[in-house]
Amino acid sequence: MKTYKLVRREARPDPSIIRLSNGATFGGDVLAICAGPCSVESREQIEATAKAVARSGANVLRGGAFKPRTSPYAFQGLGIDGLQLLRDAATRNGLAVVTEVLDPRDVEMVAQYADMLQIGARNMQNFSLLREAGESRKPVLLKRGISATVEEWLMAAEYLLLAGNDQVVLCERGVRSFDSATRNVLDLAVVPLLRALTHLPVIVDPSHGTGVARLVPPMTLAAIAAGSDGILIEVHPDPVNAASDGAQSLTFEQFDALMSQMPTIVWAAGRQLPTATLAA
Amino acid sequence: MKTYKLVRREARPDPSIIRLSNGATFGGDVLAICAGPCSVESREQIEATAKAVARSGANVLRGGAFKPRTSPYAFQGLGIDGLQLLRDAATRNGLAVVTEVLDPRDVEMVAQYADMLQIGARNMQNFSLLREAGESRKPVLLKRGISATVEEWLMAAEYLLLAGNDQVVLCERGVRSFDSATRNVLDLAVVPLLRALTHLPVIVDPSHGTGVARLVPPMTLAAIAAGSDGILIEVHPDPVNAASDGAQSLTFEQFDALMSQMPTIVWAAGRQLPTATLAA
Amino acid sequence: MKTYKLVRREARPDPSIIRLSNGATFGGDVLAICAGPCSVESREQIEATAKAVARSGANVLRGGAFKPRTSPYAFQGLGIDGLQLLRDAATRNGLAVVTEVLDPRDVEMVAQYADMLQIGARNMQNFSLLREAGESRKPVLLKRGISATVEEWLMAAEYLLLAGNDQVVLCERGVRSFDSATRNVLDLAVVPLLRALTHLPVIVDPSHGTGVARLVPPMTLAAIAAGSDGILIEVHPDPVNAASDGAQSLTFEQFDALMSQMPTIVWAAGRQLPTATLAA
Amino acid sequence: MKTYKLVRREARPDPSIIRLSNGATFGGDVLAICAGPCSVESREQIEATAKAVARSGANVLRGGAFKPRTSPYAFQGLGIDGLQLLRDAATRNGLAVVTEVLDPRDVEMVAQYADMLQIGARNMQNFSLLREAGESRKPVLLKRGISATVEEWLMAAEYLLLAGNDQVVLCERGVRSFDSATRNVLDLAVVPLLRALTHLPVIVDPSHGTGVARLVPPMTLAAIAAGSDGILIEVHPDPVNAASDGAQSLTFEQFDALMSQMPTIVWAAGRQLPTATLAA
Repeated sequence: MKTYKLVRREARPDPSIIRLSNGATFGGDVLAICAGPCSVESREQIEATAKAVARSGANVLRGGAFKPRTSPYAFQGLGIDGLQLLRDAATRNGLAVVTEVLDPRDVEMVAQYADMLQIGARNMQNFSLLREAGESRKPVLLKRGISATVEEWLMAAEYLLLAGNDQVVLCERGVRSFDSATRNVLDLAVVPLLRALTHLPVIVDPSHGTGVARLVPPMTLAAIAAGSDGILIEVHPDPVNAASDGAQSLTFEQFDALMSQMPTIVWAAGRQLPTATLAA
Repeated sequence: MKTYKLVRREARPDPSIIRLSNGATFGGDVLAICAGPCSVESREQIEATAKAVARSGANVLRGGAFKPRTSPYAFQGLGIDGLQLLRDAATRNGLAVVTEVLDPRDVEMVAQYADMLQIGARNMQNFSLLREAGESRKPVLLKRGISATVEEWLMAAEYLLLAGNDQVVLCERGVRSFDSATRNVLDLAVVPLLRALTHLPVIVDPSHGTGVARLVPPMTLAAIAAGSDGILIEVHPDPVNAASDGAQSLTFEQFDALMSQMPTIVWAAGRQLPTATLAA
Repeated sequence: MKTYKLVRREARPDPSIIRLSNGATFGGDVLAICAGPCSVESREQIEATAKAVARSGANVLRGGAFKPRTSPYAFQGLGIDGLQLLRDAATRNGLAVVTEVLDPRDVEMVAQYADMLQIGARNMQNFSLLREAGESRKPVLLKRGISATVEEWLMAAEYLLLAGNDQVVLCERGVRSFDSATRNVLDLAVVPLLRALTHLPVIVDPSHGTGVARLVPPMTLAAIAAGSDGILIEVHPDPVNAASDGAQSLTFEQFDALMSQMPTIVWAAGRQLPTATLAA
Repeated sequence: MKTYKLVRREARPDPSIIRLSNGATFGGDVLAICAGPCSVESREQIEATAKAVARSGANVLRGGAFKPRTSPYAFQGLGIDGLQLLRDAATRNGLAVVTEVLDPRDVEMVAQYADMLQIGARNMQNFSLLREAGESRKPVLLKRGISATVEEWLMAAEYLLLAGNDQVVLCERGVRSFDSATRNVLDLAVVPLLRALTHLPVIVDPSHGTGVARLVPPMTLAAIAAGSDGILIEVHPDPVNAASDGAQSLTFEQFDALMSQMPTIVWAAGRQLPTATLAA
């Protein structure tokens, strides 16, 4: 059999709901609001960001400690130190941690710090990494490859489930296109399309999906309206000086303004925002 | 000067609002709700559709009389007879008419029947047609070419304005992609992007943008949330037997169900639906 | 029937050969070598170019009098004056003329000056233009649309044949892609693919296909090796100051150097170069 | 510094030449002819193939022991047993071995069997794998990612050189496109483009580049004409029953026929074929 079966909608009586340790959920009535910097840069940066996004209503902290960078000369992340900083900042602010793992040898180690392992777009078909993450018991956030078809993406998820891990969330983050007006084309139609094809939750990353900070708020609202189970947004205390992805990061104020626009659209979509975290 | 200037946001103090004869507007607080069949097929078909979409809250009737078809053996439309049927059905139901013109020689004639001339995706860079439509005084709906950049699209609009016609509405209808899971990729991020670049209104066509009827309702809601000034939706009394585009057409019931979901999202987006048309 | 039939390989016992008035052929053993400027700019420019390319071995002169330009502010061509200059320069140098027609109303007029009507990439699905060119008795060079599938391209050719004109040559000129390293991606595999699907000849335009002058010679050789029935190359006396497409135009010297490399590859491909033109 | 520097053309006085243990070279006057099955399936299959391709003039044997497959249910390769079979077959026939490594933990092990490590399209930005292969002393064949820009591809090569391995060959294998008429679009213009940008050799894989066996011979000839330093072709004793990629594999007879067409085009391109291998 050469097509997916474990991820198919028909494989489960109900859509899957993935729960993280702090109570954040992906796939139920309550949306997952994941926010944080592209890269963990310092204790001050990640602490301030965690506090700010928690206060604005996020329940998951994102941040990269191991960064996949096109150039070997670009900032590659703080590694284990970054993981520790991320964990500390999240815990202090009642947030769960989602962070990327790049190497199959690092899965166990990253899993000690994270509540959810992110497999990035470049690694969607890194089958060694998928198998290793599949053997972990940690929830996995599986980003769509930069030019992956929906079929290929679901097949990548199938690797995870087949290896024993059914705590999988899909994340649309834009596909490569011919127009440089935006970094990628955010393909929101996959949200309702996946709803019919799979029981797995799907969230949207409008930061990578557009690459332009001012497009992030409207595309977040659009994602919710399309039925997304959550969002993943880059927030940074000082985007202009960010070590990576500054052009697409929101400031604390911009993120807070966006979160204040959310209740009506979330309500219109028949969903709920997470309740306030401990620190908020 | 090789870039656009008349369509630039800075060229006008305020965003443009395009008004059709029945009071429908594109670009103001009130959304334009354009609905109807891909092709006008018969008096019965277009009458029934006009009545149904008007009752559900549409204010513009779409329908093709001259059809651009990939195959010369596919249905090419009813021509002038189709225009007359469309006009009659629209007028009887208080709707305005938007319909495609394919040939520069037909612009004047089509303008006698239509309230708004559609220039389709295949003709976005048909400069003879753009010039002729630019010399008409009819509002123009300019669809994005199937792989047009935002820059090229705005340049096509610039041809219209330069020829003297500033009653132009842009319509996102999906771009060509590598994944056959949907017919096109609906690029909703252009909605807020264009808001910053141009004073022209922009609407979204989720029917061509996805090619799949069940994806049309969620993508309509997403388009509204992203800030679209209106929608263009294919509706047919019997999609399975439609002469063209049946797979992406909504039934009357599906369109009505979608329209009943609209008020909350429209309100959340800070916009309004058109008031009931005369016949509704 | 919704697929092509007149253009199918099986519709003819042998591959079609299209002959122009000066003896140039597309589709037989002898290649068609089409060269000239993007735009006709002046008598001096087109005369000098015609003389140079004829001397180097070209047998068809290309040059635009009506230019489809993304921007309405870019040079739009000399119109009828350009056609006359092109005709004069070609005749004096024993060359045939291929030139683009943009508007269905101009087909008859352009046909008075040209030996072959070019339908450009932007107009591949301009069905009014296809029908009008189909009713002309002039050979037609049908360029592939910028993101046209092979199926759509053959369907466009079918419009021409169905309208009565079977003197049709296909021209691959690159498709739109995500990488700005070249202007387009030259899809040479369509050459052998089309050989199996259709009896129509196919030539290659490496100038638009790459957009970079230094890539034109190697891609010309590659096109011949892949089985192309001819080439279409932009040549200009002073590319740096060309009114359009300077970056992809060869100088006279570069074109002559390329032509001197051709005999061995043409021989290796089992084909022949055209014999010297009258003026050469 | 965020751009490549070690791979730049200007970083070396001369283009790099990569030599394998049996004398095969990439980048000099003599082309590398790499052929073999997609997957190693059995001793009989790989022995027969090695013997056949060596006799026809190949000097490198390709074959996968670890297969990256979209579906977890598809054949995943024979693993170490496959490596041993591949090594034996190559050695007996005077061929070098190129084979893919998928996991950074396998680099050292695969390097014991292979003369050249292949990093496949899906792993072009698997930075852990690049670093590990960079620390190996084995030559690396770096395939272009399925929608990688030339800049991204060169950056991936930069990772290898920066880690200490300058024995790197680039391999164009087609990019993803909108047209399903071929599996990918073979982007031959990158061959001359890379010649100007980097000192690294570049070869072409027309099997993956087209996905259609009958297009492989003409595109091989086109690749040579464009200046490719070699070719990588799938050959299988029984393509119809191949465990993977049968549709794009040549039979022994087809490969032999192609090789008999090579001398004239290779000569026209100013290059040479490898001299007969020991076993041939």
